[in-house]
Amino acid sequence: MDRVLLSHGSGRGLNLLLDNIVLPVLTDGNSLYTEDAAILQWDSMSKLAFTTDSFVVTPLSFPGGNIGKLAACGTINDLAMMGAIPKYMSVSLIIEDGFSVEKLKCYLKSLRDICVTNNVKIVCGDTKVVESGNCDGLFINTAGIGEFCQGSTMLSARNTSDGDQVIVSGPIGLHGITILAQRGNLSFASNAISDCAPLSAMALHLMNASNSVRVMRDATRGGCAAILNEIAKSSDVTIRLDQSKIPVPDVVKGACSFLGLDPLQIANEGTFIAIVSPSDTQKCLDALHELPEGKNAQCIGTVLKKGKYSVEMITEIGGIRPVEVPHGQLLPRIC
Amino acid sequence: MDRVLLSHGSGRGLNLLLDNIVLPVLTDGNSLYTEDAAILQWDSMSKLAFTTDSFVVTPLSFPGGNIGKLAACGTINDLAMMGAIPKYMSVSLIIEDGFSVEKLKCYLKSLRDICVTNNVKIVCGDTKVVESGNCDGLFINTAGIGEFCQGSTMLSARNTSDGDQVIVSGPIGLHGITILAQRGNLSFASNAISDCAPLSAMALHLMNASNSVRVMRDATRGGCAAILNEIAKSSDVTIRLDQSKIPVPDVVKGACSFLGLDPLQIANEGTFIAIVSPSDTQKCLDALHELPEGKNAQCIGTVLKKGKYSVEMITEIGGIRPVEVPHGQLLPRIC
Repeated sequence: MDRVLLSHGSGRGLNLLLDNIVLPVLTDGNSLYTEDAAILQWDSMSKLAFTTDSFVVTPLSFPGGNIGKLAACGTINDLAMMGAIPKYMSVSLIIEDGFSVEKLKCYLKSLRDICVTNNVKIVCGDTKVVESGNCDGLFINTAGIGEFCQGSTMLSARNTSDGDQVIVSGPIGLHGITILAQRGNLSFASNAISDCAPLSAMALHLMNASNSVRVMRDATRGGCAAILNEIAKSSDVTIRLDQSKIPVPDVVKGACSFLGLDPLQIANEGTFIAIVSPSDTQKCLDALHELPEGKNAQCIGTVLKKGKYSVEMITEIGGIRPVEVPHGQLLPRIC
Repeated sequence: MDRVLLSHGSGRGLNLLLDNIVLPVLTDGNSLYTEDAAILQWDSMSKLAFTTDSFVVTPLSFPGGNIGKLAACGTINDLAMMGAIPKYMSVSLIIEDGFSVEKLKCYLKSLRDICVTNNVKIVCGDTKVVESGNCDGLFINTAGIGEFCQGSTMLSARNTSDGDQVIVSGPIGLHGITILAQRGNLSFASNAISDCAPLSAMALHLMNASNSVRVMRDATRGGCAAILNEIAKSSDVTIRLDQSKIPVPDVVKGACSFLGLDPLQIANEGTFIAIVSPSDTQKCLDALHELPEGKNAQCIGTVLKKGKYSVEMITEIGGIRPVEVPHGQLLPRIC
């Protein structure tokens, strides 16, 4: 590997770049990056969660959101998925010379609105301007700090085991198909609306309902396929999905069948996977169904202990097929 | 203001962009960004410091450092300047398609080495790849969390008052002149070496020596002029410098006189201003002189209470001239 390529931006290429180049240098091979956020013992009293994401989405604005909303939701969701309550956010801007001030204000307002409604304080930031042609309009980095309630369960992709149930919080594939439709001007998917949303309220509600939530993960880059494979690998289990249970909106189904894509590999920005103990599955589903944003939550699969890790799916015609991490770069700059 | 321009990247232009566009939208006008880092009450027991910076320096490598070293030092220094001990760092990369893996590894190694020697743990990160032409090689964002020792003094640009003394930790202007020389291929300044360095050990040593340090600030974008004006404004005081005391290296003096620049407006990346009580000035200087990196520390001025805030300098010929924040963009992408 001599050059970083666009295909290293997600899926298997990203794993390759991280595992072979970035993580060995930055962390001496400790794979600290496998969770959505780091959990840090702060003092004898408390832990905190810490995360960061840079947003380079194109187009900057799309049905259901824009780069500002995405930057706020992305960091809030990374904290929420660890079971933390998002508290503080940093906002760092890289702006291209000539960028519209009106658009900048619009995106920053979206970012702030999400923070305000989720009780997250924007407390520090940075602003850089680069020459025209040296960045694509606007890049936003957010970092976030979250706190844990006393006695709260620690979630981890390593926590799941035989018999656990896989829940998805809502319909899948909407963010990726929305971006794809906007970029490709695909009329047959032009009514797709991104699911971009903050997940902290839903995550907290779920954890209050049950103390046997093992893992939560928002299914962003690489979609459900990527995060289910990460969980399966981290816990060394097989995850078996039931295709008939997976909520795929018509617009996603249509676009995927037309373009030969797998809805499980399409990015989401407001949908998460929760893996819960079998005894609490119904309780968890009931809790999610109480919220408007969780009304389509479904149990879509089961965790099996079978030795080698894998993700597989019982198809609608009764076969079993593997669910793989996307190979190349399905769609660059989805977030 | 319709468009964000390159001139909004530092000095007065940056203040204009922040005060009129970014801060009113993000923070409802609370100017939370006037310090190097935010100080957050974490729980009843402890406070933490939180900061972020995006690095877009060009060229990516220069005498004395590179973007990786700069990204580590920048965030470590922002925490250290608040009197915090840097503990944790996030690293977020935006990489251009085609970027050299060897260079990436080299910059990340520099970043990590600074963290290792300063006991800072890299705990989370993010990696994005964008198409060729949509970013300039490599941008790095770091965010950092620092802790305060129990009973440690809270530093703030608001803290200084009549009679306090202004100390500079070392020679000024080296980073900016180094970058300028590299970019402009200026042979007369080609032996300039950036001062890029972590300041946490020196800052801690100073605070251990005296509990009457009021403010510390690393003199980055806009140089000493910008940060002294910020301190003067925040504390509503006049800061009077004595030109004969300011340590300006020959290479900086030469380049500035040739190019018509003011050394006080040139960026540093490993030099800070400390404002201390008059009674402890000698003790503070002695402490700095004990360290190799502080051996050229000097007392360069005095704080006066005169009503309207300002920064002024007694020149070497005995006159008084104002020390102003750079107007336009002296040198874009210095960090």
